[in-house]
Amino acid sequence: MSMPFLTPSIRLRRTPFTRRVEAAGVKAYTVYNHMLLPSFFTTPEEDYRHLKSAVQVWDVSVERQVEVVGPDALRLVQMTTPRDMSRMADDQCYYIPMVDTAGKLMNDPVAIRLNENRYWLSLADSDMLLYCKGLAAAGNLNVDVFEPDVSPLAIQGPKADTLVARVFGEDVVKTKFFRHTTINFEGQDMVLARSGWSHQGGFELYLQGSEYGEAVWDALFAAGKDLDVRAGCPNLIERIEAGLLSFGSDITTEHTPFEAGLTKYCNLDTVKGFLGLEALSKQATPTKQIRALAVDGDPVPSIQHPWPLLDDSGEVVGHISSSTWSPEYETNVTIAMVNRSHWDDGVRLTAKIPDADREATVRGSFWI
Amino acid sequence: MSMPFLTPSIRLRRTPFTRRVEAAGVKAYTVYNHMLLPSFFTTPEEDYRHLKSAVQVWDVSVERQVEVVGPDALRLVQMTTPRDMSRMADDQCYYIPMVDTAGKLMNDPVAIRLNENRYWLSLADSDMLLYCKGLAAAGNLNVDVFEPDVSPLAIQGPKADTLVARVFGEDVVKTKFFRHTTINFEGQDMVLARSGWSHQGGFELYLQGSEYGEAVWDALFAAGKDLDVRAGCPNLIERIEAGLLSFGSDITTEHTPFEAGLTKYCNLDTVKGFLGLEALSKQATPTKQIRALAVDGDPVPSIQHPWPLLDDSGEVVGHISSSTWSPEYETNVTIAMVNRSHWDDGVRLTAKIPDADREATVRGSFWI
Repeated sequence: MSMPFLTPSIRLRRTPFTRRVEAAGVKAYTVYNHMLLPSFFTTPEEDYRHLKSAVQVWDVSVERQVEVVGPDALRLVQMTTPRDMSRMADDQCYYIPMVDTAGKLMNDPVAIRLNENRYWLSLADSDMLLYCKGLAAAGNLNVDVFEPDVSPLAIQGPKADTLVARVFGEDVVKTKFFRHTTINFEGQDMVLARSGWSHQGGFELYLQGSEYGEAVWDALFAAGKDLDVRAGCPNLIERIEAGLLSFGSDITTEHTPFEAGLTKYCNLDTVKGFLGLEALSKQATPTKQIRALAVDGDPVPSIQHPWPLLDDSGEVVGHISSSTWSPEYETNVTIAMVNRSHWDDGVRLTAKIPDADREATVRGSFWI
Repeated sequence: MSMPFLTPSIRLRRTPFTRRVEAAGVKAYTVYNHMLLPSFFTTPEEDYRHLKSAVQVWDVSVERQVEVVGPDALRLVQMTTPRDMSRMADDQCYYIPMVDTAGKLMNDPVAIRLNENRYWLSLADSDMLLYCKGLAAAGNLNVDVFEPDVSPLAIQGPKADTLVARVFGEDVVKTKFFRHTTINFEGQDMVLARSGWSHQGGFELYLQGSEYGEAVWDALFAAGKDLDVRAGCPNLIERIEAGLLSFGSDITTEHTPFEAGLTKYCNLDTVKGFLGLEALSKQATPTKQIRALAVDGDPVPSIQHPWPLLDDSGEVVGHISSSTWSPEYETNVTIAMVNRSHWDDGVRLTAKIPDADREATVRGSFWI
């Protein structure tokens, strides 16, 4: 299938960086949280090779923030997640499954604690602002809940530390993984976290004030010329190799965090005030779960609906949700939801790819 | 600017009709509620002429439904809107602004009452499912809130009655505007309402069960050959002429329903239990409001960010949010938010269009 066009609209919001993204030659977009997210600049393969060898700047403004601030802020955030937030430090980032009263996923953001009464939720693709507003309204919570003017810009790749040190100072590279610090850019304080949606290392700058967007972008590109800094974006190949799950594709509102393989973020024994605790506790032993799966043969076509996985008898025992050819591992790397009966390392299955049936192998871990 | 590509993804959901939409030659999409919405099939102008003269079938599955069912269903829905829902009949559809505790818009769906304890909200582009879930969870309401397997298919145009009568029976054309009835298709009951996002007349079929999608589509096309039935979609030209507002473009989370011109849907004197009542009551006299506005000169370029409107002294007194050339009215038809000082019929303003400044005229009403 050829790629369709995307009709421009004010409703599909541009970001503080979109003019620079266009100037860098973006080839295609996706839409995420009502906003434009670049999907490749050269080819996905070339973007991938560059990401693994140099440094890229990613416009991930689509990770919209929900700010929860006030005396009941921690209480509200804890209502939404099985992860125990009670011992989080002020400079920490937590990856948190957000779960409804039926135990099903609604989002899987990174939560940032700014202080004990102030949090940001850096969202995957659903309007969790509205869930938080609903809790605050009906629960009479003493909080403000809103979308601040904050747009994340990721700096990813093996040379990210070098670039970030040049622009924001040597000290920032001391920041540990999933911790954040504050930098100052032209008089404006901004949060900088060691995080990002790749396994190549790097940072996410939480741009505070859209008006600084192009100046920050330009400063990074001016300082990174000799590092071959380029515009990039979350890369399909690399994120599958690394097992980074996409909410809405790999894990959805149909799944529990246990099915999503997020067991370690479910502190059911200690968490207090999470509204889905009772329902989720009953589903702590999943009958299917996310797995890495290699599909044999030539590169598979692009995936637009889940591809069934069959066992020897032709029974459906799972579905592939993300899939692409890996130039590095020379196989089709995929993410699949597989039944317990067939989820062990090494199990051979048949994948119903649109062009043909293919042999596939469940793996004990992702590639990176 | 040339039109960018949209990268396919499972996260951008296909609908029960997408294969038929593709076969009908869809040229471009937008993304709405995490789902694909066609934006034109031939050219916007040709689609427009056909819509005004024949009948079209529109895949508007993106109008995702929130089902609220249970003893507290009416209570929950009323918490979200200033429209008084207390006297709604079981076969009625209500256009309702959904408003937060600060008096700002969150969505503007059509609410359908199925019975006193069961409602559907046919959403504009935001995840109001999550707000409703938040209210239910924190308010301990006795309701179920979920997205049912219901996908609206619109039949629009002057020949819509003829086509619908042929496929669903003569009786259904007696259905009055914004009322609904039940049809039976191959043994499956489905809601059919006289409604739709055009002013050309027609119906929306609430497809109940994705598995019936292609059969319904095929039945409409088989029965409508001599009516020149075609695949269509909400048409930019026609909807601006008719003053149909797009949530996310013309009206946003920054606006009150009064600014949106939705005063008649705000029953502040009689409504009971609406959570935004106090805040909205203080904003009942807007200082800016939606207006129709004609822009002189050649066809304007496509709009991707609001275009400022200036008065004689160069002061910004409003913004255009939707704009296109109307072949019928031979002017650029636009929707704008205009300050009270300049919102009267006939006021002349200067529109800052990217290609040039243009003369523009505020109108007392929309074109259709």
